[in-house]
Amino acid sequence: MKQRIVLALGGNALGDNLHEQMLAVRGTAKAIADLIADGHEVVVAHGNGPQVGMITLALEAAGKTAAKTPYIPMSVCVSMSQGYIGYDLQNALREELLNRGIDKPVATIITQTVVDGDDPAFLDPSKPIGAFYTEAEAKEMAARGYDMKEDAGRGYRRVVASPMPIDIVEKDVIAALLHAGQIPIAVGGGGIPVKQVEGNRLKGTSAVVDKDFASAKLAEMIGADALIILTAVEKVAINFGKPDETWLDQLDPAMAERYMAEGHFAKGSMRPKVEAALGFVQSGPNRRALITKLEKAKEGIRGETGTVIMNN
Amino acid sequence: MKQRIVLALGGNALGDNLHEQMLAVRGTAKAIADLIADGHEVVVAHGNGPQVGMITLALEAAGKTAAKTPYIPMSVCVSMSQGYIGYDLQNALREELLNRGIDKPVATIITQTVVDGDDPAFLDPSKPIGAFYTEAEAKEMAARGYDMKEDAGRGYRRVVASPMPIDIVEKDVIAALLHAGQIPIAVGGGGIPVKQVEGNRLKGTSAVVDKDFASAKLAEMIGADALIILTAVEKVAINFGKPDETWLDQLDPAMAERYMAEGHFAKGSMRPKVEAALGFVQSGPNRRALITKLEKAKEGIRGETGTVIMNN
Repeated sequence: MKQRIVLALGGNALGDNLHEQMLAVRGTAKAIADLIADGHEVVVAHGNGPQVGMITLALEAAGKTAAKTPYIPMSVCVSMSQGYIGYDLQNALREELLNRGIDKPVATIITQTVVDGDDPAFLDPSKPIGAFYTEAEAKEMAARGYDMKEDAGRGYRRVVASPMPIDIVEKDVIAALLHAGQIPIAVGGGGIPVKQVEGNRLKGTSAVVDKDFASAKLAEMIGADALIILTAVEKVAINFGKPDETWLDQLDPAMAERYMAEGHFAKGSMRPKVEAALGFVQSGPNRRALITKLEKAKEGIRGETGTVIMNN
Repeated sequence: MKQRIVLALGGNALGDNLHEQMLAVRGTAKAIADLIADGHEVVVAHGNGPQVGMITLALEAAGKTAAKTPYIPMSVCVSMSQGYIGYDLQNALREELLNRGIDKPVATIITQTVVDGDDPAFLDPSKPIGAFYTEAEAKEMAARGYDMKEDAGRGYRRVVASPMPIDIVEKDVIAALLHAGQIPIAVGGGGIPVKQVEGNRLKGTSAVVDKDFASAKLAEMIGADALIILTAVEKVAINFGKPDETWLDQLDPAMAERYMAEGHFAKGSMRPKVEAALGFVQSGPNRRALITKLEKAKEGIRGETGTVIMNN
């Protein structure tokens, strides 16, 4: 049965640098094309951590040289990363579809995500962006005004606020392309973070919207049947990494809330994915979310694997 | 009468840097909104000279620092500039339209322009990009492998090949959005330059496609009624800047060819605009091009000013 799907790619779908990305998108394109070949309407969403990190670092570095690049706000860095990732991804997906005899246009939509300027997240920046630093480097950057935090034993990273999405500005554009049988790539990196300032004006803000929450908001707004959140594991687990680790085939909101209260899903990792999935399935009737890995998306949407989150 | 228009913005529509751009797009948005308020279907195309120059310089500068940004190809720099310019432009146009009570979505489409890998332009790079350099700086850069040329007495600039566009990959996406009553921003900076390499694969190439030629190709492919090429002057002139300077209200292909043969339109300035206009009007019946300045676009399309290029 044909479904309208928002597919949120995980970090491994794009690689960590220019060369990796060009290769990674080819495998990613195959998994996306599988869903399209099955007749589904697909919107592709993706993260941008390494890419926006690279852009931010480069512009920062250039700011210190004779080239005198001005300070570039995070919103502009995200817009650049959407252009760059979208270009590679639309190109790879176009090729994969044509190789299968499917002639459907693929296009990247520069997407803005509206956040609330009063979101409490602005008081506690917690979203890591860019490279890892040693403790000494982190201290030096903190002294220059950046928010730095230790990241799960892997080193220090710059952090920015990660407010919740409240609107996707280009939702009608994405819906129009789906209606025309086309494949939009959208809300890259969670969308360009903007807030309403005065009248009809939107203004970029220093933040990064979680790409899974942004994908869930988009899925809600375009009336998707399914949200697929791709990650490194095939299913969600309780007691993850422990002897009594248990993989879950299904989750309903009540179960998920209980597991979260018991501390089962790692903050900054599986927990926001489960929360994003819950937000979507609770936003309307007959909405289903699936958490699985890229290679299993096709089987997952057929109900053969992954963790399905739905209302009872 | 409602027309389908491709509007190619000139350099002054966007300003030369981050701050200028944010202000410039507001005035630009007013001129575009005037056409939309008159009932026309509009695709907005634009250049990216200063922006892609800034991005290229920043990434080059970062490549020399500890941040170790890898070499970034021109195609990737163009994709980033499309994201960045599109974000500002769609935002400003959205606001201007909403202020007038017009609720039409505006969206930036990351656009790829196909060029022929055997285009003779690759043998003679001539399109200036980025900043101006002194003769000494230019010599140093030439020694590092860049093509550098003196630019009309204003200093030296890096130059890349400027091949002719032969296809716009995302033409059906742009047409679908127009069909849905929306406003696409497309072929930014002439589009990301790609060439067909093997099978269905497209590959980025080190080039910049002239934005007026790319706009003309897009206008041709989506069956536009009119191509508006915006520049710094209200009309095209013969004997430009001389005592017998004469502003032209109309040009047909035969007149234009004769004037070009007589050397009337400056290479790298008015000449490619006239050539792009001719290419479009000769691509099909009832096609009209207009060369004028931003503030006169609305009057121009009504036939009140500008230089109209059309078949007799």
